[in-house]
Amino acid sequence: MSRKKRILSGMRPTGKLHLGNYVGALENWVKLQGEYDNFHLIADYHVLTTQTDTSQILENTLEMVADWIACGIDPDQSPVFRQSQIKEHAELHLLFSMLVTTARLERNPTLKEQAKDLNMDSLIYGHLGYPVLQSADILLYKGEVVPVGEDQAPHVEITREIARKFNTLYGEVFPIPQTKLAVIPRLPGLDGAKMSKSLNNTILVADSPDEVQQKVMRAITDPQKIRRNDPGHPEVCNVFTYHKQFNAQEVPQIEADCKSGVLGCVDCKKNCAKKISDTFAPYADKRNHLINHKSELLDIIADGEKRAGKVARETMEAVREVMKLG
Amino acid sequence: MSRKKRILSGMRPTGKLHLGNYVGALENWVKLQGEYDNFHLIADYHVLTTQTDTSQILENTLEMVADWIACGIDPDQSPVFRQSQIKEHAELHLLFSMLVTTARLERNPTLKEQAKDLNMDSLIYGHLGYPVLQSADILLYKGEVVPVGEDQAPHVEITREIARKFNTLYGEVFPIPQTKLAVIPRLPGLDGAKMSKSLNNTILVADSPDEVQQKVMRAITDPQKIRRNDPGHPEVCNVFTYHKQFNAQEVPQIEADCKSGVLGCVDCKKNCAKKISDTFAPYADKRNHLINHKSELLDIIADGEKRAGKVARETMEAVREVMKLG
Repeated sequence: MSRKKRILSGMRPTGKLHLGNYVGALENWVKLQGEYDNFHLIADYHVLTTQTDTSQILENTLEMVADWIACGIDPDQSPVFRQSQIKEHAELHLLFSMLVTTARLERNPTLKEQAKDLNMDSLIYGHLGYPVLQSADILLYKGEVVPVGEDQAPHVEITREIARKFNTLYGEVFPIPQTKLAVIPRLPGLDGAKMSKSLNNTILVADSPDEVQQKVMRAITDPQKIRRNDPGHPEVCNVFTYHKQFNAQEVPQIEADCKSGVLGCVDCKKNCAKKISDTFAPYADKRNHLINHKSELLDIIADGEKRAGKVARETMEAVREVMKLG
Repeated sequence: MSRKKRILSGMRPTGKLHLGNYVGALENWVKLQGEYDNFHLIADYHVLTTQTDTSQILENTLEMVADWIACGIDPDQSPVFRQSQIKEHAELHLLFSMLVTTARLERNPTLKEQAKDLNMDSLIYGHLGYPVLQSADILLYKGEVVPVGEDQAPHVEITREIARKFNTLYGEVFPIPQTKLAVIPRLPGLDGAKMSKSLNNTILVADSPDEVQQKVMRAITDPQKIRRNDPGHPEVCNVFTYHKQFNAQEVPQIEADCKSGVLGCVDCKKNCAKKISDTFAPYADKRNHLINHKSELLDIIADGEKRAGKVARETMEAVREVMKLG
């Protein structure tokens, strides 16, 4: 029996997950659960790279983990743990910060994208170092595979460089992790922009059927389809994108009926909302139970931290040994 | 009885100390020992900001600590401990890295000085963040006073800014440390450049009287004083600077006799070497004992780490509490 490869994947604790988090990442994690040895990081320190307010982090963590587990993450199989509770993240981050130049970090395209909205003079030191912390997150658990969207792939490249540099300088401690690109396209928000809580354009995994329907009803569709019988352009319609994700079977029919004008937006949206709700309905009971029994959630996280912490300490012992750090 | 103020001071473990380390720092620490509550940091992580080779760090640590204790640091009174052994340094460093901009760190004059010799493209991320790590070193122990040379004063200013920012954002955890400028001038090396092991121009605290004499004999004096009876210019003579430090009483006479030509360099140097050796002779036995009983040194450091670690954990608990980090 060959050993399973280890996957390190994580999310910032942003509270209840939206469908973009589910489709882009969580659904994928659940799929990979049998095939790989999964470690799931709650990236609470990463929150600090772009905001100083920490008051909601714990609450947001519990909401997020409730979604993870409700949607199929089995914490007995795949430890779930907070970055902030395992000091070795900070230690390895500090050591790795000595192995990469500022110029290399400034060439990070994701940072450049973010910096467009940002005065570069106000770029936070720890924000520049985001991929260094991410390298520590991955390599602390000797992650061999990192499932990411395209925008995160350059970060994994920095992780690979740091792992190689460390191994060359001090000794072979780390695997060189492989990027596993998530093939699922980015789900647009109700307004067509990237789905994001700050844009108030999300549908949440935890939304009730009524909430889902209300939200889908206000989604922007084809602006040229004004009356029911107008022929539509599904390729520019956000709701059609949702159908592709949550209602694949009916997509050819919907596409034809929208284009011909047989299908009106109201009916199409109601159908879409129903399919989205149907997808998440099986998870609602579990989610509600967990969120009403937060001590269970805290126990699950504490157990994950115990198991992940053990791996983290073993890695840091190997790091200290090859670096001859006492 | 008013509580003693706490001082945090440290050195990179560079091995045996030279007279520049003694005069600029160690002598000062010993003087302050009764008046303040001193914590002495072995800044082994800081070594990594400018070199990747870690193979000599432990040996260099033991040699340095032997000098500290031989010259009068009482480790029972003032804990002596390694940065790398107290994980809270790395944790607080990570949190503080979120509270300062890269632009602020780039304005650090010490870094600019170092960068002259450095291609800025190869500036290491952790090197840029050196003052962030130093801030964590100081504030982890709630250091109220930081004795530094003028070149280090800008770093303490960054520490003060970070402490203020943290306190404002999350709650009053940290004191705003005061800079205590060391009044002693920088001791030149034998060649007149800054005394530094890399320049091979040092006299070591641990040098035997013979070694001190050999070294002082090759010190550069006034280049215009070629023959014994030539009138000299003490103000440009490195040996005269040593006299001012280690032979204050005879300085007026030496100055007069050098200027008049009565005093030749050979006699002057022999006298100077003797005075330097006399200063450090009382420390030799203690130093030799320690360096021949490294387990004693390791026990002293382990004890310091136990005591410093307790303070560090208390501080981090307060930090986590105000930040609501689990």
